[in-house]
Amino acid sequence: MMQIADTAGLRKHVEELRRSGKRIGVVPTMGALHEGHLSLVRIARERSNIVIMTIFVNPMQFVPTEDFAAYPRDLQRDAALAESAGADILFVPSDTEVYPQPYHTYVNVEQITTVLEGKSRPTHFRGVTTVVVKLLNMTTPHVAVFGQKDAQQAVVIRQMAKDLNFPVEIVVGPIVREADGLAMSSRNTYLSTEERAQSTVLSRSIQRAEELIRGGERQSSVVIGEMKTMISAQSLAKIDYLSIAEYATLGELRGLAPGLTVLVSIAVRFGKTRLIDNTIVTVP
Amino acid sequence: MMQIADTAGLRKHVEELRRSGKRIGVVPTMGALHEGHLSLVRIARERSNIVIMTIFVNPMQFVPTEDFAAYPRDLQRDAALAESAGADILFVPSDTEVYPQPYHTYVNVEQITTVLEGKSRPTHFRGVTTVVVKLLNMTTPHVAVFGQKDAQQAVVIRQMAKDLNFPVEIVVGPIVREADGLAMSSRNTYLSTEERAQSTVLSRSIQRAEELIRGGERQSSVVIGEMKTMISAQSLAKIDYLSIAEYATLGELRGLAPGLTVLVSIAVRFGKTRLIDNTIVTVP
Repeated sequence: MMQIADTAGLRKHVEELRRSGKRIGVVPTMGALHEGHLSLVRIARERSNIVIMTIFVNPMQFVPTEDFAAYPRDLQRDAALAESAGADILFVPSDTEVYPQPYHTYVNVEQITTVLEGKSRPTHFRGVTTVVVKLLNMTTPHVAVFGQKDAQQAVVIRQMAKDLNFPVEIVVGPIVREADGLAMSSRNTYLSTEERAQSTVLSRSIQRAEELIRGGERQSSVVIGEMKTMISAQSLAKIDYLSIAEYATLGELRGLAPGLTVLVSIAVRFGKTRLIDNTIVTVP
Repeated sequence: MMQIADTAGLRKHVEELRRSGKRIGVVPTMGALHEGHLSLVRIARERSNIVIMTIFVNPMQFVPTEDFAAYPRDLQRDAALAESAGADILFVPSDTEVYPQPYHTYVNVEQITTVLEGKSRPTHFRGVTTVVVKLLNMTTPHVAVFGQKDAQQAVVIRQMAKDLNFPVEIVVGPIVREADGLAMSSRNTYLSTEERAQSTVLSRSIQRAEELIRGGERQSSVVIGEMKTMISAQSLAKIDYLSIAEYATLGELRGLAPGLTVLVSIAVRFGKTRLIDNTIVTVP
């Protein structure tokens, strides 16, 4: 695996690979890699000849109150994991490489970024879409792979890539979970033992919602009510949001009409740690 | 010259050209072509093997009160001119091809878009940078050529391309003028005979400003004052702005320090027609 820090060097290398007919896949990450990220590398491998993993803890997508400084960074460990999963190139640019001053440009997706995560984390998605545009232009991939755990992010990036005519296929890999159901996240390491034990309520309540909808429940309020009861039973859990939205528009739903594809998503805080989970269900 | 209306068809064709080692140049226009546009095609020809001219009257860059509906459109004439100047491909997408619904994404350059044209035409530059990102992704050029008449646009596009790491060289071609000095513009056709006669005051006052600065004048207010006097002498002219700004930042200047590169720019209305002109001078 080749490790590159400068954009010009990366571009030169990728241009040669493209000219020789190689298909390029990219997996953008913020490092602190876990099995979820590695599954995306494997998906990229299946769909391309050369897999680039990018590691960049993007300051622009952290809201001022968030954990940018504390975000886990361990490049040596990440590099070993990326290589083990089959990455060919590890691109690790510095902050000044990504945002040389003066910097003035922002890519903003409207409407679908003002709900859910975007409501709790204003300017977050602007940071995500801006850095993804930059990383797409730096790596010029044929395919880019993102994780379903960040469900809204995947929807926003797909919309952005379509709206801006990026010549890239956006692929979304399924959520990878711990044995007890907790969705893998770099932020899981923040949890205390007790918080970690209670955190399974996210996946359990998501699963329960899916059962209810598949079982014929047609009222969002009933499903949300059951999820709320389950989460409230955990002493350390604080609900940020519980949502049942139309997947296509991310608009909140009251009635669940047959045939509709819905995104059930939740955000729950345990102390300073904010966890998210989701599932996509088609109403029977 | 090949004429293409759909993005998928264009992309397929350009991909083949790129694979065969051709260097691609693009000249984005809104049609209503004049010698200024054609000079940009010739510049693109010198720097690439295949020149794509795009013609798209971009609704997003017109402010609601502006002339989107009235903007001159004559594809047959434009196609003949583009071909005569040496364009290989004419890309003429429809509104629905460029902005299929739902559409949510905007590219915004901050700070340098809030002054001069951006002050008089809010949301204009957001429309420009968004469509330019789209056209760059549609045409995937090695070089893109813009005109110096839209001086601020050139600065904004350069900054955007740099900030977002577009793998493209941005080239800016010099202003092309009528015999009497008026900068060529698709909007010049709106002028009445009397307005047309008075409109030479733009280039004359720009030229006078350049003479004063090259002659040693160090006070912006003196230069601006002379320009204002010249323009006010024209009965039909209404000044929108007169500006002497630092070229690098577009920040307005009071003192003109030796070695500084400055942008002298003006916008003047004749009836409903708004004309602009500019020059770049390095203070001696």
